[in-house]
Amino acid sequence: MRKLYVIGIGAGDPRQVTVQAIEAMRRVDVFFVIGKGERKQELLDVRTAILTAHVDHDYRMVTIEDPPRDREIAATGADAAYRDAVGDWHDRRADLLAAHFAATEGVGAILVWGDPALYDSILRLVERVLARGAVTFDYEVIPGITSAAALAARHRIVLHDIGEPLHITTGRRLREEGVTAGESTLVMLDGECSFTTVADADLHIWWAAYLGLPDEELIEGPLPAVRDRIVQRRKELREAKGWIMDIYLLRRTKTPAAQ
Amino acid sequence: MRKLYVIGIGAGDPRQVTVQAIEAMRRVDVFFVIGKGERKQELLDVRTAILTAHVDHDYRMVTIEDPPRDREIAATGADAAYRDAVGDWHDRRADLLAAHFAATEGVGAILVWGDPALYDSILRLVERVLARGAVTFDYEVIPGITSAAALAARHRIVLHDIGEPLHITTGRRLREEGVTAGESTLVMLDGECSFTTVADADLHIWWAAYLGLPDEELIEGPLPAVRDRIVQRRKELREAKGWIMDIYLLRRTKTPAAQ
Repeated sequence: MRKLYVIGIGAGDPRQVTVQAIEAMRRVDVFFVIGKGERKQELLDVRTAILTAHVDHDYRMVTIEDPPRDREIAATGADAAYRDAVGDWHDRRADLLAAHFAATEGVGAILVWGDPALYDSILRLVERVLARGAVTFDYEVIPGITSAAALAARHRIVLHDIGEPLHITTGRRLREEGVTAGESTLVMLDGECSFTTVADADLHIWWAAYLGLPDEELIEGPLPAVRDRIVQRRKELREAKGWIMDIYLLRRTKTPAAQ
Repeated sequence: MRKLYVIGIGAGDPRQVTVQAIEAMRRVDVFFVIGKGERKQELLDVRTAILTAHVDHDYRMVTIEDPPRDREIAATGADAAYRDAVGDWHDRRADLLAAHFAATEGVGAILVWGDPALYDSILRLVERVLARGAVTFDYEVIPGITSAAALAARHRIVLHDIGEPLHITTGRRLREEGVTAGESTLVMLDGECSFTTVADADLHIWWAAYLGLPDEELIEGPLPAVRDRIVQRRKELREAKGWIMDIYLLRRTKTPAAQ
């Protein structure tokens, strides 16, 4: 393999792919699809829709099943154990990927949900493959629409107050650290409705599930008023569909009385 | 005007426009270009390149000059004064924009550098126009590639450590608050090389100017080693070109000795 593209394809809507991504896809001989368990089929459908709409040449799709991951350790709060577990898992993924790259001629690509730079492990995986030295190749990253940008667009909001910061974090961190005054907090990777654990009297939430997909759902409002509705709706959707992908923004309102 | 699109067009590279953005542009009768001072011409060139490449129908371009802004107040550290100054300026912009919208038939659009949800004032401006009640219209936001995603793609990095947060902030806030341990800090809107004011012994910086444009420049390395080079290069580029747009990521390295 002489070149690898790591291509962000947007948050779910196949039309969120960029012209730059399409141009790269048209140079690709082999697309590597890295397994994502129960979400795999729908993710694959979005990728197929993009390729069908924009790519005409002959290419191959190679599916690589993720090795099993130790979710018990990953779910604990211990930072070092969590990082070690993730590290071991990446080593096994790197071995697998290196073998596929070694067997590939021409140009390869990995399509990444959202943007490769935000809570996605592919770039670290690629660096790990290269660090092992068994295969060498050039690689290029094509940025994608983040789920953060997609969430904001659907709610028609700016992600932060004027001149103030935006804090992007995980559900696990939100449970540990809460929300800081004056900051807007965007939460990703939250399987546990961690917004129910924060003191909420003056927080507003903008929530979305399945952004850009036909099942997209949006809920927003003062957290105390909509919290239970989000928890309930998330449970129903997850049961009906078998998986859920959601994201939300929390912001402390400046004048709680005005809400 | 019956509909307004607010369309993110990416961080500078015209190929970073999405299919969704192109589809929206093809429905537009009038593109409003909101003045940005010295950067205006180059921003206009990118927009023109996108429209020329992807839009065939007849449309009008209407340039709206920004009213002057009180930069003295904006540059002080006083939050309340800063917000008031920004607020007054938005009122004057809203009056201007409302008058243009009232004179427009069909579908309007505003093209926004990067993504409308991150350090851009257009969405607040549109809400302000609607709140005044003189004109009514539906509007839709199309997300764009953020300069954060573009920075990460060019440096081929993930924006945060595994499972850890990303803090997006301004140069002004960085000077006041510094960098928090365990957080990656992405700095936008920094006209003053604020990275020179933070304790830097174990910080790494990934810097870029003019992302996606022909003049793009990248510098990365341990902050103590590359800090002066960035300050110097930024000064040269700004003098040569008349304006600069840059962005950077700071991250505390876990093992300073290994750097």
